[in-house]
Amino acid sequence: MRTVPDFPEPGVLFRDIMPLLADPVVFAEVVAALAADAPGPIDLVAGMEARGFLLAAPVAMALGAGVVPVRKAGKLPGPVASATYALEYGTATVEVQPFTVPDGSRVLVIDDVLATGGTAAATVDLLERCGAEVVGLSFLVELGALRGRDLLPGRAVDVLLTL
Amino acid sequence: MRTVPDFPEPGVLFRDIMPLLADPVVFAEVVAALAADAPGPIDLVAGMEARGFLLAAPVAMALGAGVVPVRKAGKLPGPVASATYALEYGTATVEVQPFTVPDGSRVLVIDDVLATGGTAAATVDLLERCGAEVVGLSFLVELGALRGRDLLPGRAVDVLLTL
Repeated sequence: MRTVPDFPEPGVLFRDIMPLLADPVVFAEVVAALAADAPGPIDLVAGMEARGFLLAAPVAMALGAGVVPVRKAGKLPGPVASATYALEYGTATVEVQPFTVPDGSRVLVIDDVLATGGTAAATVDLLERCGAEVVGLSFLVELGALRGRDLLPGRAVDVLLTL
Repeated sequence: MRTVPDFPEPGVLFRDIMPLLADPVVFAEVVAALAADAPGPIDLVAGMEARGFLLAAPVAMALGAGVVPVRKAGKLPGPVASATYALEYGTATVEVQPFTVPDGSRVLVIDDVLATGGTAAATVDLLERCGAEVVGLSFLVELGALRGRDLLPGRAVDVLLTL
């Protein structure tokens, strides 16, 4: 994994997971480890746009589940359900197609990095309003100092690596 | 698959593959079929942002390959190589991190839809400038009337479904 200073903006220390995914052995190990952390049977894996897609889809395949994208506003054709959450400056919105989430589906949420937890918490809220049971969240990397878990009380949160 | 008129803009008939991916059985069949079309051993699967990620990553896992994202400008931390290509109005740029593409890598390019072929042709050019050998391209859907194959002369192009 590379650490890139000042990306995508000044002051941010970016964790670049792409070299891990380009290595066939490490990629397979990461997917297997994320899948092994799943709490029980999983119907759907929800992946957060866009890096989360690169992990959620192979984890879904490994678990015999389907994959559902959680996208930024305007990217999915409707009908969509949406959740808006606060950023440091302004707000962001995530969207899901509710018709791809059958009522009572056991859903695992996957993303590359757990930072402040804002996107993850909004995603959990959104999926549960769509009728899903969010049984857990798994991340490749947790940035511990940002305390993202504080926004996910009572949730099963697994991470492969804490920085 | 759903057909959504006037998305993302008026006059476009959008092919929405998301219901296929949310169904565990269909998702597994699509990934297996794309992997089965691979022309020989594959070192890396290149997926085009963002829907292509949802197919490229599990196909890479099925093939024992790594996965490399082909992203829109500004999304990948550098160093990046880029290719700019013409759209109906204006231009678009795709980027790859060359250090994730070892010289001589056998690369399979995956995306959900082959439309005009502009993004695919720019991706092939970009990967080959990074030292890859692009051995084939596979798509879930080809929109035949748009003649995307014309921009990929001499290339192994596989599609699961032509509309």
